[in-house]
This record gives sequence, C-alpha cells and structure tokens, in this order.
Amino acid sequence: MSDFIAWMQACQSRMESVLADTLPPVHIAPQRLHEAMRYAVLDGGKRVRPLLAFAAGEVTGGTPDRVQFAAAAVELIHAYSLVHDDMPAMDDDALRRGKPTVHVEFDEATALLVGDALQSLAFDVLAAQPLADDPAMQLTMLHLLAQAAGSRGMAGGQAIDLASVGKALDLAELEFMHIHKTGALIRASVLLGAHCGTPDAATLAALDHYAKCIGLAFQVVDDVLDAEAPTATLGKTAGKDASHNKPTYVSLLGAARAREFAQELRSDAHAALAGLAAPAPHLRALADFVVERAF
Amino acid sequence: MSDFIAWMQACQSRMESVLADTLPPVHIAPQRLHEAMRYAVLDGGKRVRPLLAFAAGEVTGGTPDRVQFAAAAVELIHAYSLVHDDMPAMDDDALRRGKPTVHVEFDEATALLVGDALQSLAFDVLAAQPLADDPAMQLTMLHLLAQAAGSRGMAGGQAIDLASVGKALDLAELEFMHIHKTGALIRASVLLGAHCGTPDAATLAALDHYAKCIGLAFQVVDDVLDAEAPTATLGKTAGKDASHNKPTYVSLLGAARAREFAQELRSDAHAALAGLAAPAPHLRALADFVVERAF
Repeated sequence: MSDFIAWMQACQSRMESVLADTLPPVHIAPQRLHEAMRYAVLDGGKRVRPLLAFAAGEVTGGTPDRVQFAAAAVELIHAYSLVHDDMPAMDDDALRRGKPTVHVEFDEATALLVGDALQSLAFDVLAAQPLADDPAMQLTMLHLLAQAAGSRGMAGGQAIDLASVGKALDLAELEFMHIHKTGALIRASVLLGAHCGTPDAATLAALDHYAKCIGLAFQVVDDVLDAEAPTATLGKTAGKDASHNKPTYVSLLGAARAREFAQELRSDAHAALAGLAAPAPHLRALADFVVERAF
Repeated sequence: MSDFIAWMQACQSRMESVLADTLPPVHIAPQRLHEAMRYAVLDGGKRVRPLLAFAAGEVTGGTPDRVQFAAAAVELIHAYSLVHDDMPAMDDDALRRGKPTVHVEFDEATALLVGDALQSLAFDVLAAQPLADDPAMQLTMLHLLAQAAGSRGMAGGQAIDLASVGKALDLAELEFMHIHKTGALIRASVLLGAHCGTPDAATLAALDHYAKCIGLAFQVVDDVLDAEAPTATLGKTAGKDASHNKPTYVSLLGAARAREFAQELRSDAHAALAGLAAPAPHLRALADFVVERAF
C-alpha cells in the first residue's frame, strides 16, 4: 500500500504542475477571469480522475508524458462542472473543498465564464498536445471526451438530477442518472488514459466495465459520506442531498446496504481487471481507495 | 446581388438541416434538455458565422460537404454564448431573436446546462465529422476553435465586457474587448472554413485580416442598431447598452462617425480580399451585408 501512496502522490504532484502550466497565467488579460480559473482548479481534490487515467495508461503502455495531458483535460472538465453545479441556479453551494465556491469568492457572472472557459481549455489541451502517434486516434479521444461531457453524458446527468429532486426514483433510475452524471467522465478518464497507449478491443472492454463499477461505487460512497460525515471532514456542505429531498443510495438502500453495494462493485471492478493481459496494480488499488473512503 | 441572396438562402437552409441533424432528438433522454438545446439553436438568426465559413471555403477549395460541419461547430459555440450571456447573472435579457430567452422559456438551471452541452457538442462535431484529408489538420481546427471560444477569446471578451460596465473606455480598449468578445469567433469562422480546403499561408493571412475587419464592423453596426432600432425590429431588447452605461462605438464616436467607421472597415475588408489568388465574391458580399444592416 505504501508503494501505491507514493505513486499516487507522484501523479498528483505531476498533475498539479501540468494544470498550473496549462491554465493561463494571472498576468495575462482578462486577469480576474484567469485568477478565478486557477482558483477553481489548482490545489483542489484528490484528482481521482487523473489517477484513473495514469493507472489505465500503465495497462496499455501509455506513458505519463502523454497521459498527463489527457488527465488534465478530464480534470478541467470536472472542475468546470463543479463551478457550474455550485451556482445558485443549480445546487447553490457556498463551500467546496473547504474553500468558498467560485461564485461566492468572485461573483456569479465570473463563475459562469470560468466554467465556460475551463471547458474550452479542456478540449484545447486534447487538441494541441501530443497524445498519440496517430492524429486520428487523438480525434477519437476528443470525440470520447465530448460525448462524456455533453448532453448524453455529464451535462445530461446533471439535467436528470435536477429533474429528480423531490421525486421517488427507483434503483434503476438512480443508476441511470449516475451513469451519466459522474460515470461518463470517470469512464472517459480510464478510456482516455488507455488510448494514450495501444489498447486492443478486449482491453478496452474490460477497462470499460471496470470504469462503470468504479463510477457507481464512487457515487454510492459519496452518498454515504454526504449522509454521515460532518461538513468539516467533507470540505463541502454535508447533508445537502437529504435536505433537498434528493434520492440517494442511502435513502433507497439504507447506509449499511449502500456500503455493502460499494463492496460488491469493488469486487466486480477487481474481477474486470483479472481478465487483462497485463497486471493493473494501480487500477486495483484505486478501486480500494474509492470504496474505503466510506469506512 | 440576387445571386448572393440565393447563395445565402441555400447556405442557411443547409445549415438549418445540419444543425437539426446534429442536435440530439427530443425523444432521447434527457428530453427537456434536448428540447431546450434545439430551442436555443434552431430557427434562429442569420447564421452570419456559417455564411463566413462557407464563403471562406470557396476561396481554398473547401467543399460545402465539409465546411457545413465546421460552420455548425462555430454556430453551436455562438448559440451557447447567447444562452449564457442572456442569463440573469450576465446581461439578464428576456428576449432573443424575437423569442423568450432560454432561461425564461425553461429555467436558469436548464439554460446553464444548455450552454454547457452545446459547447461540448461543438467540439464533438469538429472531432467526429470528416473535415480534412489529414487528421492533423483537423486537430489544428479544434485548437483554433478552442482558442477562439476560451478565456483568451470569446469568454475572455465577455469577462472584459462585464468589467467595463460604467467605466470610461477609450477606443483602443473598446476594440480590445470586441476583438475578443465577437471578433475571435468570427475569425474562427473564416479560418475554419478556409481550413476545410487547402489554404496557403498568404491566403490565411489575407483572410485573417478580412475577418478582423468584419468582426469589428459587425460590432460597430450592432452598436448603431442597438442605439437606434426599435425592439421589434431588433428581435432583442433595444437600448440596453446605453441603459447599462456600457461603452459603445456610438457613445464614443457618435452615430454618424460610427457609421463612417463601419464603411472604412468594409473598405479594408474588400482590400484584403483583392490580394487573394482566387476571387471571393461571397466574402465580398458578406462584408457589404454586415455593414448595410446599419443603413
């Protein structure tokens, strides 16, 4: 496990450095927008999506020098979505990763533009950086990220989430929402990392199944934490889902069964990795890492 | 001139059809989001940016079958920017193209997601459609659009615009704002259209200068119309700039000198085209079309 922690810290440190270099510097106009973009992205979170990309790259021979740009693109999309989700028209949250959200620290108009500009930047990174020997493969990666971010991916999941407030979803409907809202981008993280190497179809299929399990597990664990952890530990306002009458895995299954479900998803994720030609120790450890947050 | 009108109508009709096919159908979930995306994009505007792309493609041998996707991508970015700009946190406008704006017709959260999803879709189109023989050229086009949309392009221009409300800008500062806010995407329209063919460096430089003149002329004319046309003609709330104490070409130059300035920019645009190896009758007519709205 200590090897895993050292690997994780090395990836996080590399990610921070790539993101810092990718974001426009604050001395370039419009300075306040650039300051707010850096505030939204840097020094934040565990970088789970980039970690998944780096770990998937290891399976297909995608080197960190390439994967880092795919990882940065995914993290920029994730960061933009947090900024927009926190806005008053959406979740109206004042706290994120222990800091005031962007619209609180700056203002609503700036938060809107920060999200918009981060999304453009994500696609810019994928288009402009050398990610693959074959530019056609890079176009495939751009298509993959655009699908994951768009109305049939993350943005669509957010729309389904908004429409579900106060409604009695069943498990299948809740899963449908999360496959879009968080699952699509987690899947893109794994697949983009894999595309930086030379993946065959069987490997992509196995990684896709792994990513689906991890994506759901991530959400189940988030629901458990939201229901039980104090705000200070969480770094964001706790108990928001219950207070907004949003359906969650805890409200549908109870906390104990939700934890069990997360364990089952971890086992499924591990099983998907077992079929790979190459070992995938870091993907395996990441499945543990995602689930063990809840224990 | 009647040839030009027939050409324009053919392009507009092709554009409408490509956009209708590109936007997700309303029977696919999330249905309300897809309905709102179609509401925001279809049956709207003169499609000036697509027209510029088609006309620029003619100069470099970019066929309409290819240019139509580049044009759609640019129009989707433009449409997303209108949806977000109209929101209460930004310009707070209730009317656009004679219809209620998206956040009025639907709601603010939906408007936010519509803009976000339209931006993803724009990059998806550029990545997934066959736009160039060489995929590396297509990556260049994606980079071009991402730069035009991002914090050093359109989104940045919007930030500069917001920061300028109530301030006394001089002409150079006003131009700096508009080169970003509207100029960047108009430039991208022309250059993306040209990249669908086989442009040489001299042609790109001439088209770039043409696009800069047209982009500024477009804004100068917009300022004249905003100051003088009644709301019914404009299809959006007139006189908003003056009532928000925003600097405009009319407030800085007066309406008569602003009109003269638009004419000078048209002459500059025509001069840029005169140096091209191939004739560019539609780019020339578009320069007239943009400026003559004000007369």
